[in-house]
Amino acid sequence: MVEIKDMMGDATVTRADGRTIDELRPVRITRHFTDAPEGSVLIECGNTRVMCTATFTDSVPRWRRDSGLGWVTAEYAMLPRATSQRTDRESVRGKIGGRTHEISRLVGRCLRGVIDMKALGENQIQLDCDVLQADGGTRTASVTGAYVALVDALRWAEEQHHIKSADKVITDAVSAVSVGVINGVPMLDLPYAEDSRAMTDMNVAMTGAGAFIEIQGTAEHRPFNREELGTLLDLAEKGNRELQQAQSEALAQG
Amino acid sequence: MVEIKDMMGDATVTRADGRTIDELRPVRITRHFTDAPEGSVLIECGNTRVMCTATFTDSVPRWRRDSGLGWVTAEYAMLPRATSQRTDRESVRGKIGGRTHEISRLVGRCLRGVIDMKALGENQIQLDCDVLQADGGTRTASVTGAYVALVDALRWAEEQHHIKSADKVITDAVSAVSVGVINGVPMLDLPYAEDSRAMTDMNVAMTGAGAFIEIQGTAEHRPFNREELGTLLDLAEKGNRELQQAQSEALAQG
Amino acid sequence: MVEIKDMMGDATVTRADGRTIDELRPVRITRHFTDAPEGSVLIECGNTRVMCTATFTDSVPRWRRDSGLGWVTAEYAMLPRATSQRTDRESVRGKIGGRTHEISRLVGRCLRGVIDMKALGENQIQLDCDVLQADGGTRTASVTGAYVALVDALRWAEEQHHIKSADKVITDAVSAVSVGVINGVPMLDLPYAEDSRAMTDMNVAMTGAGAFIEIQGTAEHRPFNREELGTLLDLAEKGNRELQQAQSEALAQG
Amino acid sequence: MVEIKDMMGDATVTRADGRTIDELRPVRITRHFTDAPEGSVLIECGNTRVMCTATFTDSVPRWRRDSGLGWVTAEYAMLPRATSQRTDRESVRGKIGGRTHEISRLVGRCLRGVIDMKALGENQIQLDCDVLQADGGTRTASVTGAYVALVDALRWAEEQHHIKSADKVITDAVSAVSVGVINGVPMLDLPYAEDSRAMTDMNVAMTGAGAFIEIQGTAEHRPFNREELGTLLDLAEKGNRELQQAQSEALAQG
Amino acid sequence: MVEIKDMMGDATVTRADGRTIDELRPVRITRHFTDAPEGSVLIECGNTRVMCTATFTDSVPRWRRDSGLGWVTAEYAMLPRATSQRTDRESVRGKIGGRTHEISRLVGRCLRGVIDMKALGENQIQLDCDVLQADGGTRTASVTGAYVALVDALRWAEEQHHIKSADKVITDAVSAVSVGVINGVPMLDLPYAEDSRAMTDMNVAMTGAGAFIEIQGTAEHRPFNREELGTLLDLAEKGNRELQQAQSEALAQG
Amino acid sequence: MVEIKDMMGDATVTRADGRTIDELRPVRITRHFTDAPEGSVLIECGNTRVMCTATFTDSVPRWRRDSGLGWVTAEYAMLPRATSQRTDRESVRGKIGGRTHEISRLVGRCLRGVIDMKALGENQIQLDCDVLQADGGTRTASVTGAYVALVDALRWAEEQHHIKSADKVITDAVSAVSVGVINGVPMLDLPYAEDSRAMTDMNVAMTGAGAFIEIQGTAEHRPFNREELGTLLDLAEKGNRELQQAQSEALAQG
Repeated sequence: MVEIKDMMGDATVTRADGRTIDELRPVRITRHFTDAPEGSVLIECGNTRVMCTATFTDSVPRWRRDSGLGWVTAEYAMLPRATSQRTDRESVRGKIGGRTHEISRLVGRCLRGVIDMKALGENQIQLDCDVLQADGGTRTASVTGAYVALVDALRWAEEQHHIKSADKVITDAVSAVSVGVINGVPMLDLPYAEDSRAMTDMNVAMTGAGAFIEIQGTAEHRPFNREELGTLLDLAEKGNRELQQAQSEALAQG
Repeated sequence: MVEIKDMMGDATVTRADGRTIDELRPVRITRHFTDAPEGSVLIECGNTRVMCTATFTDSVPRWRRDSGLGWVTAEYAMLPRATSQRTDRESVRGKIGGRTHEISRLVGRCLRGVIDMKALGENQIQLDCDVLQADGGTRTASVTGAYVALVDALRWAEEQHHIKSADKVITDAVSAVSVGVINGVPMLDLPYAEDSRAMTDMNVAMTGAGAFIEIQGTAEHRPFNREELGTLLDLAEKGNRELQQAQSEALAQG
Repeated sequence: MVEIKDMMGDATVTRADGRTIDELRPVRITRHFTDAPEGSVLIECGNTRVMCTATFTDSVPRWRRDSGLGWVTAEYAMLPRATSQRTDRESVRGKIGGRTHEISRLVGRCLRGVIDMKALGENQIQLDCDVLQADGGTRTASVTGAYVALVDALRWAEEQHHIKSADKVITDAVSAVSVGVINGVPMLDLPYAEDSRAMTDMNVAMTGAGAFIEIQGTAEHRPFNREELGTLLDLAEKGNRELQQAQSEALAQG
Repeated sequence: MVEIKDMMGDATVTRADGRTIDELRPVRITRHFTDAPEGSVLIECGNTRVMCTATFTDSVPRWRRDSGLGWVTAEYAMLPRATSQRTDRESVRGKIGGRTHEISRLVGRCLRGVIDMKALGENQIQLDCDVLQADGGTRTASVTGAYVALVDALRWAEEQHHIKSADKVITDAVSAVSVGVINGVPMLDLPYAEDSRAMTDMNVAMTGAGAFIEIQGTAEHRPFNREELGTLLDLAEKGNRELQQAQSEALAQG
Repeated sequence: MVEIKDMMGDATVTRADGRTIDELRPVRITRHFTDAPEGSVLIECGNTRVMCTATFTDSVPRWRRDSGLGWVTAEYAMLPRATSQRTDRESVRGKIGGRTHEISRLVGRCLRGVIDMKALGENQIQLDCDVLQADGGTRTASVTGAYVALVDALRWAEEQHHIKSADKVITDAVSAVSVGVINGVPMLDLPYAEDSRAMTDMNVAMTGAGAFIEIQGTAEHRPFNREELGTLLDLAEKGNRELQQAQSEALAQG
Repeated sequence: MVEIKDMMGDATVTRADGRTIDELRPVRITRHFTDAPEGSVLIECGNTRVMCTATFTDSVPRWRRDSGLGWVTAEYAMLPRATSQRTDRESVRGKIGGRTHEISRLVGRCLRGVIDMKALGENQIQLDCDVLQADGGTRTASVTGAYVALVDALRWAEEQHHIKSADKVITDAVSAVSVGVINGVPMLDLPYAEDSRAMTDMNVAMTGAGAFIEIQGTAEHRPFNREELGTLLDLAEKGNRELQQAQSEALAQG
């Protein structure tokens, strides 16, 4: 349905991994990846692998008490050898870096965007997204995987009678994908090799209804115009639709 | 020139401060606000006041050495009583919060987006944006003010023969403005009272040529669609054009 | 009235900025510098500029509860480019330096020295002194400016019926000034250029009644004797009398 | 071959998971678990799962330079939801806890115990043991898994001609297992449910030749005597022999 | 009574300080070393000197409340010039090193091993072991000295009627000593010069009844077998018996 | 010789410890208190006991290199149970408190005040003052004791031919003492019980020649005038003369 107008480059571009420019990397979502958490998901997008767990607690942080409202928050981190060069642990350095903070906040906002805090009641869900292997798109994979873990945690909470209905708490699905412009060509779902060469780079989180929860586009290397933005959003829409298909298939099982 | 299509609300909306929905707060840019820095600017957008300084150093961080390229980076912070409630100092808490990190990174990216690192050569410019008073839009005011401080620092560097030409280093102007949807009505340049009630909130950095450097839209409280996005970008375009007018007037003086 | 006995040097000394040895730099005190704080003052002593805010809270720290007594405390900090070389932020370094701690404590003690904690009741005032531009004497300017912000905060608290009477809480005015010996000549109110060459350096806080609240004299570079001490205290007395004149003129306005 | 003298309890004890008292939990070692590291192993001991990566660097830390010797070090950490209750991240708390430090040091010592630092030359191997799921014995699983990752990294280094021979660098295999006394009965390989009730708890690292690299026995809840120690070491010897069998089978593959 | 079988070396070995291989360094235990603490002990083992204080508090940490049980914990630290090279303070570095953590935990476990937490009731004892001078065996001296301080604190608590009976709280004495293998010869109580050359190094904490509370043996430099382990434990048993003699003599005085 | 004019109180005042108002507590200075440091001193002033060590290094910090000048610096700390209530360790809290910073800086300045940095050459001396027991006057005892340790370290350096002559490096002795006003009566050398009740509190460091190196007077509880200042300085002069007598007697021994 999406028509990629290849206005800025050559449509017959071959990507290093053989994909077409509007093609997602293979997605695999494994639920119940570990046993302890209320929700535990391994999401694989190509070589990117993120473990997403959801922890349900039947209370809220102090600042939220007696509001009748729940809270959803997220923390993102990379294992030291998720990347080709080892990264020092933030626990060892004694502080969290700016990139980590930025991504944790993004993931939290995206998921709060599909939660009815009143229906959640004074309960909290903490999402932990730990990158086992990084090959681009770790923050968007985190959003997409965390959503599935969140649903599992809410289903568990419904079974345990902490909430009345998981379906009422979740107002819609949410997934995220990266898009970018490489050598003038807009592309969907950038692996690291492409991401590091992107002139423009955008992360787009969308609901099942096709609305935006978050758009983060940055053009450190070359500004972009409205038309390019449109093309990138078309790509993101296609990618998110397919990711939501994968989410719902995973959630339909057992 | 911009036609705000008021598709989502009542066009005759009166804002608390009497502005129309597509009207910026009064902007005042004071150059040479302090004496020591190579660039020192006080920017006032309504009640928001940010002191932006630019520090020129004729060397680059270790990781950038022998690349022939320069570097531009930014740090953002709020004074404890910039806000109506006092905020504890991050130096006292011993760590930088996620919001501070997120904004510092945003400001840095926006300014790097208009710098030719080769023309800058192995020199560094550090931008410090300290909020003296916060009434919404502190991050966008920081971008807008820091640009002026950056230009002053580059002019100084040209005079001191650290660089050949400030004009070659700066490829275009950059400014940023916030837009958002309040009660279904898209509006330009949100003060704190509006920002805290916004369903959708977007920060848009644009070049003088009208291209985007950074778009950060978040819809924690209600997702937005393409049409709304278009309206918000129209508003942002109008606002940025006016901010760039203020920048160039300030830079034209002595 | 003060007779400077020029026993150690040449009385006809010309200072780099043209002042006589017992002359203050121009002082300017701007009240209501920002809107949010209960007291907000910009104090300028020559090129030194410090923003002093006072935050009133109708409770005291845990250790002070149920004592019937109030508390006054202070924090001092420098913006990164207050100085000719940029200083790294203490928030970024993750810890507060010794100099910052030392000065914060000094400012707190000086102001507590003129407060009747019983009359204040279980309320707290936090003073924040942020140096926008540093040219020597930032700690003494902080004391002098913070006093004015403190009075404004107490007047506000009286209006808001948090305290019965601001006048009863404040037992006297307090100001502070630096004095030092440069090339054997005692001088009042040292700018950075003089301060860094001082053999002896002393900060003196005094009440309106002419009594001492704090004396901090250090002679890292040449010990001083009783006679020199006397001369320095004469100078400090003259300086503080003039600073208190400036404080009371500022406080007399609207 | 090992005769467990059941001198302190009932030999026919049934453990909650159906094992006999001298039986290991099922062990599974997956090599090449992720792609980036020079060695990457997932070890599963019952429900305990630890990801162990080995990073080879062709240089040593500053203090080791010009010694002609290599270095091997380890870091251990738990993901927040490895446990039934979520644990706050040490990066968020800003410091590493005592338990983490203690285990990291133990793992490092155990692996250094089978390395010929001269044969390794001025190269470093960093082992990262991240617990994905914790059900007792995470530190011993870390040692056992890290050994396999270490061998893989050394084989890689041999192929890349960083070292002459992996076999010369590794002087022997090493594995570790926990033993303990539960209700007076010595047992092998304690899961969390047993570990938390143990009166005596011991971690034993052994070489392929059957010698000890590390013994850490603690009896917070009831001191133990020589005879009990002997029984525990017999159990540990049996367990380590079987773990080393699993290691060598894993290493024999592809 | 203990027969040291000199199976691995020459029994007539002369140690640098003239001791036989199974001889302790001179031990001196000074009670009431300082006045403020409930227990305050200086223990000297050869040139190693550790100040051990015990602080009694009539409450327990939050996590222990309403359990009816007490708590005992320990902190170990070295003064900067306890060693021949100055060590930076951990307070200045802003974090506690792994070795410090490891030892603090060891000391705490050893002392908890002889405490009846029920008899202690909801009271806490904090042991602080500060090394004034380090010449090997600081962690074992800490255990041995802290035990004496602990007894003094409990006697004080009995006198003050915080506990019924110190004797009921303490189930047995505890002391610790190091043993090791130097050039193939097992030896008791290693000073720094020996410790740094040890192939195997073991710390053994024992009760008055001769049972083990903690065994920590490490063989970074050469694995050890069962027979060597036996010899080392014989040496440790002899050493601990003598240390406990010194403890009880000290405690018998005033 | 000093005439204490008892203008503010009753000269026949009896102090809790039986001293007259111008009487020092008993002073004891033990050199070679520990073996490792180049200078190691235990100073006891009444119940206050501070261990002062001096570390000589034949290099200077980076910022001082190639200046031809040496450097002297100090660090002060309290053991947790130096006080009647246990104080948490700053290493555990992860940061150094303001009081500690303030005192460390004071001690450093006082000792630098009697050092000829040129004669010292590019060598550094680090003074560590660790309070074993605190009963008021710990900072002044630190200065007085550190001076003796400093002399010992310089004598050692002279013997080792790191410097030509210790006597040329030290330009004069330095000691420090506290004075204060208790219930209107000026007194010398305040123990904790008096210090905590002092209306005015002053620390005075003086050279052997009777000149001031540092004066720190604070009057949080009641401002003081010139006459009182004079009396306090008289007392301090007497105290310092006696302390310097004790220093020189200690240094005259072996």
